Amino acid sequence: MESTKIFSEVPNIQYQEQTPEILVEEFRKVITSRRSVRVFDATPIPEAVMTDCLELALLSPNSSNLQPWEFYWTHSPEKKAKLIECCLSQPAARTAAELIVCVARTGTWKQNSRLMIERFKAQGSEVPKPAYDYYRKLVPLVYGQGPLGAWGPVKKAVVILRGLFTPTPREPASGADMRVWATKTTALAAETLMLALRAHGFDSCALEGFDSVRVKKLLELPSDAYTVMVIAAGKRAPNGVYGPRIRFESSLFIKKI
Amino acid sequence: MESTKIFSEVPNIQYQEQTPEILVEEFRKVITSRRSVRVFDATPIPEAVMTDCLELALLSPNSSNLQPWEFYWTHSPEKKAKLIECCLSQPAARTAAELIVCVARTGTWKQNSRLMIERFKAQGSEVPKPAYDYYRKLVPLVYGQGPLGAWGPVKKAVVILRGLFTPTPREPASGADMRVWATKTTALAAETLMLALRAHGFDSCALEGFDSVRVKKLLELPSDAYTVMVIAAGKRAPNGVYGPRIRFESSLFIKKI
Repeated sequence: MESTKIFSEVPNIQYQEQTPEILVEEFRKVITSRRSVRVFDATPIPEAVMTDCLELALLSPNSSNLQPWEFYWTHSPEKKAKLIECCLSQPAARTAAELIVCVARTGTWKQNSRLMIERFKAQGSEVPKPAYDYYRKLVPLVYGQGPLGAWGPVKKAVVILRGLFTPTPREPASGADMRVWATKTTALAAETLMLALRAHGFDSCALEGFDSVRVKKLLELPSDAYTVMVIAAGKRAPNGVYGPRIRFESSLFIKKI
Repeated sequence: MESTKIFSEVPNIQYQEQTPEILVEEFRKVITSRRSVRVFDATPIPEAVMTDCLELALLSPNSSNLQPWEFYWTHSPEKKAKLIECCLSQPAARTAAELIVCVARTGTWKQNSRLMIERFKAQGSEVPKPAYDYYRKLVPLVYGQGPLGAWGPVKKAVVILRGLFTPTPREPASGADMRVWATKTTALAAETLMLALRAHGFDSCALEGFDSVRVKKLLELPSDAYTVMVIAAGKRAPNGVYGPRIRFESSLFIKKI
């Protein structure tokens, strides 16, 4: 399969990017001091800080750079009040300075694939042909599920057959797979967003206990949009963390093989 | 519904956790210098660094603290070679010092729910009753899908009916929802892992182009396990980053409402 060459060959590019020295202990503080904060005090998050955190989130790794994420930042007090209700009026939502709905889109890859090709063109001759081929040929093949998902089962059959003989990526082969795909990337950015808030001295709580149907209606989301989580953000109140962090034995989760 | 009180009331707990001062610019360096690195040099990642990164990942926020994640860290050269094949022998996999398979589990919540209750008991009288109720009553109701998923459609019907009148969480109401649920949390930790590697001076590439069927077989994963991504890690080679980072207009993704 010609397309696998796109993966297996290292292109001949004269690009280099240096890395800075980083104080790892500062990063460690971000991770260890991040807790799910369930009560916030009245401190507002400056608009510039919130914008910075969201912009940092957009630098997260994402699938094929197709950026299938969206972040709905409630500014209207009416919408915020309704969103709090959708979140069952949990204290984290009720007391949050800001509420951000993280949304995964399964349909924006087409547009974003075209944007990638435009950017390549703008970069000029430095972009090798396999990069163009990736977005022109492979992306539609991999992410397209056809009208009403009809292409999915065909792809699945081909993939299963091919997979008998040689390693073959299996997903996404259905609408359900696409939802997993877009959710995964959106969660990567959601984590960056929460860490960025902590680095800026603010806190967050990732909420999954919300009414996704009502949230979709409130945000007027299209049918290919999935609400991944609502991030409540603000400054922790003294009683904002409910107890010491609980994690089970690492050996349950880190498996050396 | 009694169970919603668990969400809506702030418990009376005398617990407080201070936050440290953090140099936000150090965090910014982690985010901005993280790139998907596709060629690594021969530098090994010290075992202690890799362990630290994985342990930091386990501090990520996760759904109801049910920690449905697993990280398979390839030590055996034979398994690593096979895993590289499963990843289509992409340069990032081929040249990686370490390969970590991030796995989402939809079935470990039962065991972990019991572990939560045990931990509460060990903490003694400070843990309020709603916390016990949450894991004893609400968690089985929310995450249990019944034998062969039979409970799912019933729950869905109840939830739709209830949702006509009052905000009601809708998911997870199926095996597919559980897969999304576990994947989401695992992705949060995967992002922390990649950022921790960067903070330690190492690099990563999140791979989705792999044969999930072969990987599951290789890792001897049970049926409730989903391979979320393979993280290739190491030190970037001079030609490891294929070009300048491309992100589209923020306004496509950050929506003020």
